[in-house]
Amino acid sequence: MTIYADNAATTAVSQTALNAMLPYLTEIYGNPSSLHRVGQRAAEGLTDARGRVAACLGCSPAEITFTSGGSEADNQAILSAARIGERKGKKHIVSTPFEHHAVLHTLQKLEREGFEVTLLDVHANGVVTPEQVESAIRPDTCLVTIMYVNSEIGTIQPVPAIGAVCRAKGVLFHTDAVQAVSHIPIDVRRDNIDLLSLSGHKFHAPKGVGALYARRGIALTNVIEGGGQERGKRAGTENVPGIVAMAAALEETCAQMAAVNVRLLPLREKLIDGLSLIPHSVLNGDREKRVAGNVNFSFEGIEGESLLLLLSEKGICASSGSACASGSLDPSHVLLALGRPAEVAHGSLRLTLGEDVTAEQVDFLIASVTEIVAHLRRLSPYWRDLVEGKRQFILS
Amino acid sequence: MTIYADNAATTAVSQTALNAMLPYLTEIYGNPSSLHRVGQRAAEGLTDARGRVAACLGCSPAEITFTSGGSEADNQAILSAARIGERKGKKHIVSTPFEHHAVLHTLQKLEREGFEVTLLDVHANGVVTPEQVESAIRPDTCLVTIMYVNSEIGTIQPVPAIGAVCRAKGVLFHTDAVQAVSHIPIDVRRDNIDLLSLSGHKFHAPKGVGALYARRGIALTNVIEGGGQERGKRAGTENVPGIVAMAAALEETCAQMAAVNVRLLPLREKLIDGLSLIPHSVLNGDREKRVAGNVNFSFEGIEGESLLLLLSEKGICASSGSACASGSLDPSHVLLALGRPAEVAHGSLRLTLGEDVTAEQVDFLIASVTEIVAHLRRLSPYWRDLVEGKRQFILS
Repeated sequence: MTIYADNAATTAVSQTALNAMLPYLTEIYGNPSSLHRVGQRAAEGLTDARGRVAACLGCSPAEITFTSGGSEADNQAILSAARIGERKGKKHIVSTPFEHHAVLHTLQKLEREGFEVTLLDVHANGVVTPEQVESAIRPDTCLVTIMYVNSEIGTIQPVPAIGAVCRAKGVLFHTDAVQAVSHIPIDVRRDNIDLLSLSGHKFHAPKGVGALYARRGIALTNVIEGGGQERGKRAGTENVPGIVAMAAALEETCAQMAAVNVRLLPLREKLIDGLSLIPHSVLNGDREKRVAGNVNFSFEGIEGESLLLLLSEKGICASSGSACASGSLDPSHVLLALGRPAEVAHGSLRLTLGEDVTAEQVDFLIASVTEIVAHLRRLSPYWRDLVEGKRQFILS
Repeated sequence: MTIYADNAATTAVSQTALNAMLPYLTEIYGNPSSLHRVGQRAAEGLTDARGRVAACLGCSPAEITFTSGGSEADNQAILSAARIGERKGKKHIVSTPFEHHAVLHTLQKLEREGFEVTLLDVHANGVVTPEQVESAIRPDTCLVTIMYVNSEIGTIQPVPAIGAVCRAKGVLFHTDAVQAVSHIPIDVRRDNIDLLSLSGHKFHAPKGVGALYARRGIALTNVIEGGGQERGKRAGTENVPGIVAMAAALEETCAQMAAVNVRLLPLREKLIDGLSLIPHSVLNGDREKRVAGNVNFSFEGIEGESLLLLLSEKGICASSGSACASGSLDPSHVLLALGRPAEVAHGSLRLTLGEDVTAEQVDFLIASVTEIVAHLRRLSPYWRDLVEGKRQFILS
């Protein structure tokens, strides 16, 4: 049995996305800036895709800028808001410590330029309140940037309420919705979102394509300079096949979202119940306010990396944090932000279920994780110290 | 008959590239940062592709950074060299006025920051000499950035000799090789190139992927901040399918290059000879020092856009300049840099032949262009003025 339970890291390209894409690779391959027929057919595909993406988000096509992915969109959104703020003498930004690195590293770059950044406490449950945002906003705040859904623990932030606070205060609001699209219905107008980033490969489009929504009137700063593509806001020949595939995948995922969530929710609950029986473990992030497919646990006394490798031997694909941070020995910045000590954060596991996961697969996940955690604990000198009372258990 | 003669704008994805790409869309779809099997198979594909691209350029795999395309690579190369120079108090850059906009606009951004840019005269023939470069280099020069092959007129710059001058002077040398790869054998060590940009879709890989070669020891500045992908120098989940396809396409184009050039050269000459018979026309750019597939003419008394549209009606896909600049009413900055008056630059046509173009297709191109130019001139009040002697002809 192979179970791909790492859908927050990336997803397989769907048949719908692939079918939409293929003609644009080999047949309608023109450069959309070309005036001839092959170019103009590509340009039509691009226009059509822009309209579809806009319709899924509740905005106008002109408010969509296609990028190479979520990271580029995050960079551009934050830099644009910072430049707008700077011109008004506003150099304060509100965010959280558990944003994606594409946000946090861009904020750090701005701090080196003299911006001031306030990172809100994300509590033990990984959810920010609108009240926290409201009290953090200052007269010199130019931007609030808070992710819609956390990439590791799947907690859902109250984006519509945060958007309302920002709108009332006259502060731009950006949300990294990379992990929200396909799990939560998004309407940028209703939710008072000024800037929103998304990434195709998180919802069955290919890697290498994403989009930035920017409300009309918000002047974007280029991350990539050059030709006049994307109304001069993003240079480089448009990735037409990827963009067309992304539009098709987005439409499909939005159409199926409600039904998928209804199906996944009891399976997620079953998985959480099963893993909760492992002693000295804890669920990371609020149990209710999380997307339907996300389960994230810490197990005391083990190393997440060993757990992943042994799960992989059993055909289970999982993660110990966000894939972008793997390869690093640092414990997850998200779990540290929740207040987990490093020893506990190190022994964490993220399972992100696909739309077609079955109850049998969930049983297999529970049995496998339970067995491997016990096995790793038997091998662990650290665990022996805990059992023998030489160290105190942190988790009950 | 359909003739795609706009291969400098973009190319169709080859069967080789498509075959290499497909498994990475639907089967080996993992995130290469993931530790599990599906992720590690994707990581192996990425490593393999990096090795292949490096081998084609004569560098080490660690010297290759994958980007979203040529524009991003140009931006990153130039910004990186500028930041290195800045730290040493060197803020002068040498370039040409007929670079791609991804280069020129990045240079303009640096000028606004206080950098000084010298643009070399590109002569009437569109070729820069190493002596020009040498005399432009100053003690405070941090970078020479000169494109390998011009995107509109296809002229080949003496890159190895320019590289030798820069190396001797201790100045970093970047070349935008987007239009050179697949037409000219490149060896970055032999050619003394420090930084080189390329774009997959110009040689039958998909759109949305490119690469930056940076010689070991050159610290790159991030254009996109975030996760630690590409040794921390380019954030965002790697576009594995695109990268794998690009490596396959690059290997194929390099293997076929010599034979393709031998085949194309007489066809290009035939095309130039045929179009030269049109009165009051001129070939733009040196006739010898140009890539095998490029033909660029100016015809007095017509509008390039009308010519393109009528050619498109006949099934011929061509360009009046670089696709990136189309949609703009400004005459080509490349032709203006060659000293063509705006009236002449407006009536220009770029034909860039594909590898499989036939002698019959070349005949059809000549006949069609000749017929349409004559037709447009008959309709043109400007042409009537020329014929009636109310205006002076510029071209003989």
